Amino acid sequence: MLATMVTLLLLWPNPAKADTHQFSLSIEDTIVTLVDKQTFHTFSFNGQTPGPLIHVVEGDEIEVEVENNTTLPHTIHWHGLYQRGTWKNDGVPDTTQAAIAPGETFTYRFVAAPSGTMWYHCHVNVNEHVAMRGMWGPLIIDPKEPLPVEKEVTKDYIMMFSSWVSNWASKPGQGGIPGDEPDYFTVNGKSFPDTQPLRITKGDVVRIRLIGAGDELHSIHIHGHTFDVIAKDGRPLVNPYPADTILLGPGERYDLILRADNPGLWMVHDHIDRHTVNGKSPMGGIMTVIEYTEIPLAEQSFYKWKDKKFAPDFFYEESLKKPHGMHENEGFQGIPAP
Amino acid sequence: MLATMVTLLLLWPNPAKADTHQFSLSIEDTIVTLVDKQTFHTFSFNGQTPGPLIHVVEGDEIEVEVENNTTLPHTIHWHGLYQRGTWKNDGVPDTTQAAIAPGETFTYRFVAAPSGTMWYHCHVNVNEHVAMRGMWGPLIIDPKEPLPVEKEVTKDYIMMFSSWVSNWASKPGQGGIPGDEPDYFTVNGKSFPDTQPLRITKGDVVRIRLIGAGDELHSIHIHGHTFDVIAKDGRPLVNPYPADTILLGPGERYDLILRADNPGLWMVHDHIDRHTVNGKSPMGGIMTVIEYTEIPLAEQSFYKWKDKKFAPDFFYEESLKKPHGMHENEGFQGIPAP
Amino acid sequence: MLATMVTLLLLWPNPAKADTHQFSLSIEDTIVTLVDKQTFHTFSFNGQTPGPLIHVVEGDEIEVEVENNTTLPHTIHWHGLYQRGTWKNDGVPDTTQAAIAPGETFTYRFVAAPSGTMWYHCHVNVNEHVAMRGMWGPLIIDPKEPLPVEKEVTKDYIMMFSSWVSNWASKPGQGGIPGDEPDYFTVNGKSFPDTQPLRITKGDVVRIRLIGAGDELHSIHIHGHTFDVIAKDGRPLVNPYPADTILLGPGERYDLILRADNPGLWMVHDHIDRHTVNGKSPMGGIMTVIEYTEIPLAEQSFYKWKDKKFAPDFFYEESLKKPHGMHENEGFQGIPAP
Repeated sequence: MLATMVTLLLLWPNPAKADTHQFSLSIEDTIVTLVDKQTFHTFSFNGQTPGPLIHVVEGDEIEVEVENNTTLPHTIHWHGLYQRGTWKNDGVPDTTQAAIAPGETFTYRFVAAPSGTMWYHCHVNVNEHVAMRGMWGPLIIDPKEPLPVEKEVTKDYIMMFSSWVSNWASKPGQGGIPGDEPDYFTVNGKSFPDTQPLRITKGDVVRIRLIGAGDELHSIHIHGHTFDVIAKDGRPLVNPYPADTILLGPGERYDLILRADNPGLWMVHDHIDRHTVNGKSPMGGIMTVIEYTEIPLAEQSFYKWKDKKFAPDFFYEESLKKPHGMHENEGFQGIPAP
Repeated sequence: MLATMVTLLLLWPNPAKADTHQFSLSIEDTIVTLVDKQTFHTFSFNGQTPGPLIHVVEGDEIEVEVENNTTLPHTIHWHGLYQRGTWKNDGVPDTTQAAIAPGETFTYRFVAAPSGTMWYHCHVNVNEHVAMRGMWGPLIIDPKEPLPVEKEVTKDYIMMFSSWVSNWASKPGQGGIPGDEPDYFTVNGKSFPDTQPLRITKGDVVRIRLIGAGDELHSIHIHGHTFDVIAKDGRPLVNPYPADTILLGPGERYDLILRADNPGLWMVHDHIDRHTVNGKSPMGGIMTVIEYTEIPLAEQSFYKWKDKKFAPDFFYEESLKKPHGMHENEGFQGIPAP
Repeated sequence: MLATMVTLLLLWPNPAKADTHQFSLSIEDTIVTLVDKQTFHTFSFNGQTPGPLIHVVEGDEIEVEVENNTTLPHTIHWHGLYQRGTWKNDGVPDTTQAAIAPGETFTYRFVAAPSGTMWYHCHVNVNEHVAMRGMWGPLIIDPKEPLPVEKEVTKDYIMMFSSWVSNWASKPGQGGIPGDEPDYFTVNGKSFPDTQPLRITKGDVVRIRLIGAGDELHSIHIHGHTFDVIAKDGRPLVNPYPADTILLGPGERYDLILRADNPGLWMVHDHIDRHTVNGKSPMGGIMTVIEYTEIPLAEQSFYKWKDKKFAPDFFYEESLKKPHGMHENEGFQGIPAP
C-alpha cells in the first residue's frame, strides 16, 4: 500500500492543486422497484440503483473503500479511467486483483483521469451483476479546462440505461444466460411512467450524458430538437455532429448538447420499440418527457402526467450542482433484501 | 385552431415563398403481402405499407387531415421535425394530444423544418404499431439551399427497413412483446426476392436514404463500391465519411452517396445474416441487387432474377421526381382486411 | 477466362509494379473447438477457422483457386473490394456466378483494391454459413502510400468476432433460423479463457483491426487506454476520433490505434455482457487481456492465466510480419469431420 501511495505521489503533476477524496461504498443485497409492482433483487452500492454520483475534477486523488456485504464476490471497475501506475486498482477479478469476498473490504486508490462522463461497475460475472443486478453508478470527472460549450451548460443530466429479466428478479446469483428475455427497461433504474420529466426553460443549454450501463442497445430519440453529439466515452469530439436519434451500445457514453429553443412537451424515448414496454404492457420502459417551464401543465387536459410529483434529482441534476464529492440519491434507494 | 393558424403565420419567415400543402391520410386495416404467401395485418396509411411519400420544401406549410378507420387509437408523429410553435402537432398520445379514436379525425398543421430525410409514424403502442404493423412512411424535406453534392444527385432512393413476427400476422392489437421472434425482414415492406433492383448507369450520382423504421438494427452492405455518408437523421454531416457497411438503429436515418463508377451486378443486403431469411428459408429478407444498365441481363445465365418484372417506383424513385406533394405508390397497396 | 485476363491487364495502372499472387483455398468439413469441450462442425478454409490470412498490396493481382470438398454449395465473396471490371468474381451465388457445387472448383481473379482491412466469406446461405459455420478469413491490403500513423505501427493485430448456437454444432446444413439462441462467442474462433493475450511493451504503437464476421453486434471495450478510431471498413477516416468502447455491426471493420503508454494487465472484452459466457457459465466468451511485458506475470498471484501457454500468432501478429502472400495458422486448425 505504501508503494501505491508513493506511485500516486509521483504521478500528480500539480499535487498542490489536486483534491483528495475518500469515499465509502458498501455492496448490499437490496430490493428495488423498477415500476409499479415489479421489484428486483440487486447488489446495490450503498443501497441504491444506480449507485451514488461520484463527481470530481481531473487529477483529483480518489480513495474508495469498498465493503462487500453480500454473499457473492464482487469488484469495482472504473470504466474509462487510465489508472496510470495504479493498474491493480482497475477492478478486474483474477486479472488485477482477487475478487472481494463476502464480508471483506478492498480500497481502490487512483487519480481521476481522463476527464469526462465515466462510470463504475462490478466486473465479476458481468452477465448477471452488470446486465441485471444494477451494479453501476456514474463517475463524472470535470476537465481542468472545459470546452467553450461546456461553460455554456445550464442544465446537466445523467441517463443510465439498463434492461432486466423478470424471471430472475428474486434469484440473485442466477441468470444472465442465453435464452433470457429482457422484459423491463429502465433509465436510472426506473421504467415509464415512474421515470421523471426533464424540466427546462427556453435559453437553457442542456447537456445529457447517456451511459449504456446494461446489456441492450438503445436508440435514443429526442423530439422537437436537433442535438449535438459533443463527446464519446467522455472524450470530446473534434467534430461534433447533429442528430435527433443516437444509437448507444453497452459501455458507450455520449454527451449531447441540446439548446432549449422550442417550448413544448417533447418525448424522449428509446426507438427500439420493444424497450417501451413494462412486461407485456405497452407505453412503458425507456420513455420520458421534456417539459418546458413555459408550458402550463395544468392547462394541458390531454397530458396524462401533468399532476405527477416531481423529483428534481432523478437525473442527478441536483447532485451535479453540489460540491465535488460523492452524493447519494434518496430516490434510488431500495430496501434491504430479507 | 385560429390561434394555431396565427402562430403559423408568425413563424414563416418568407410567407410569400412558402408553399402550402393539404394532405389526407386515412388509417386502414389492411392485409399486405411481405413475400410469397406471407401476409400481414397492418394499420396502413391510405392502404399502403410503407405509407405515401410526403415530399415538400423546407419552410412549406403542411396540413394533414388524418382519419382513423380502424378499431384502435392512433396518432401520427413527424419524426425529426421541430414543430416550432406547434408542439401540439407532434403526435404523441397523452403528451401532445389525445390519441385519435376510431372513427375520428385530427388535423396536423406544421411547418416543414428542418430539411432532410425524415419520416412519419404512429406513436400509440409503438411496440406493436410501429414495430410490426407497418405504420410508417417517408417524409422528405428538400433544403432551400442544397449542398453541392445534392445538386449532383441523378438517382434518389428511399429504403425503409422493418421486421415482422409472423405469429402475430393475423392478430391486430396484439404482439410486440418480450419473447417475440422476428422472422420476416423487409425493405419498403417486401422481402427478397420480392424486393426490386436498383437500376443505375455509370456516371450516376446515387443517393440512398436509409430509414430505420422497424425494431431491429440493420448493418447494410453495398458490394463493389465505397459510399459516403453525407447526412445523419436528415442533418448534413460537416465531415462525410466513406464506408461499405453502415449500422442503422431504429429511428435513425443515413443518407449515402454512391458514385456509379463500376458496372456490374452488386448485392445490397443486411449483413446481420439472420435478417436474410424468410421464415426458416435462407436467401430472403433484406437483400436486393444494383443492376447497372451496362450489363445485359439476358446474357447472365447465372442471374436468377434476370427476367423479373421491374417496378420502377419501388424505392420511391419515380415519386421523388414528381412535383412536391404527397404521392401514393400502387406497388405498396394491400387489400382491405376482411 | 482469356477475356477476363485481358480485362485485368487493362485495369492495372502500373503492371510492372504489381505483384501477382496465386492462392489455393479448399473448403472442408471440419470440427473445431471453440473452448473447453465445445466443438462445432464448420465449413473451413484449408481446415482452419478463421481462414488463412491473405495479405497483399493495393493493386496486386490475385488469383484464388477454390475447391469445394463439402457436400453443400459455396462461394467466396471478397468483402469491401471494388472488383472493377471483374464483377463476376464478387462471389454472390445466382447474381455474379453459379455457386460452386460440391466437388467443383472455381477460380477468382481480381485486383486488390481498395487498401485496408477487408475480409472474405462464403455468400451462400449466409445465415448459416457465415453466421455459424466459420466461413470467413481476413484479407489485409496494404496501401501503396500508408498514412503517417500507419508507418508508426509496431504491433498489428486482427480480431474477428463471431457467435455460435450450440444446438446446431453437429448439424451442418441446418440452423441459422429465427429462434436460434447464440450461446458461444468467439474472437478468432476461440472463447475465453482459450483466447490469447496481446503482449505489448511501453512505446508500442498498436493497431487492432476489428472485423464483425458473425451475426451479433459487439461493443468492444479496452481498459486503461484511449484508442483512436482511424479507419472504418478499411477506409481511412479524415477525422479519427478517440474512444474506449466501440460498437461494431456485422460486416463492419474498425482499425484502432492504441499507444502503449500504461504498463499493466488490461482487460479487452465485449461489453455486451451476455457475450462473456460459455454456454451458461460466466466469464468466458469475448474476453482477453493486454499483458505489458513490463509486468512480471509470475509475481501476480491473483492473475489466473499467468502460466498459460502463449501462442504468438493468435491475432495473426506473426503472419502479418511475413512476406506478402497467404499464411495458414496452425492454431486455428480443426480436425476433419468424420
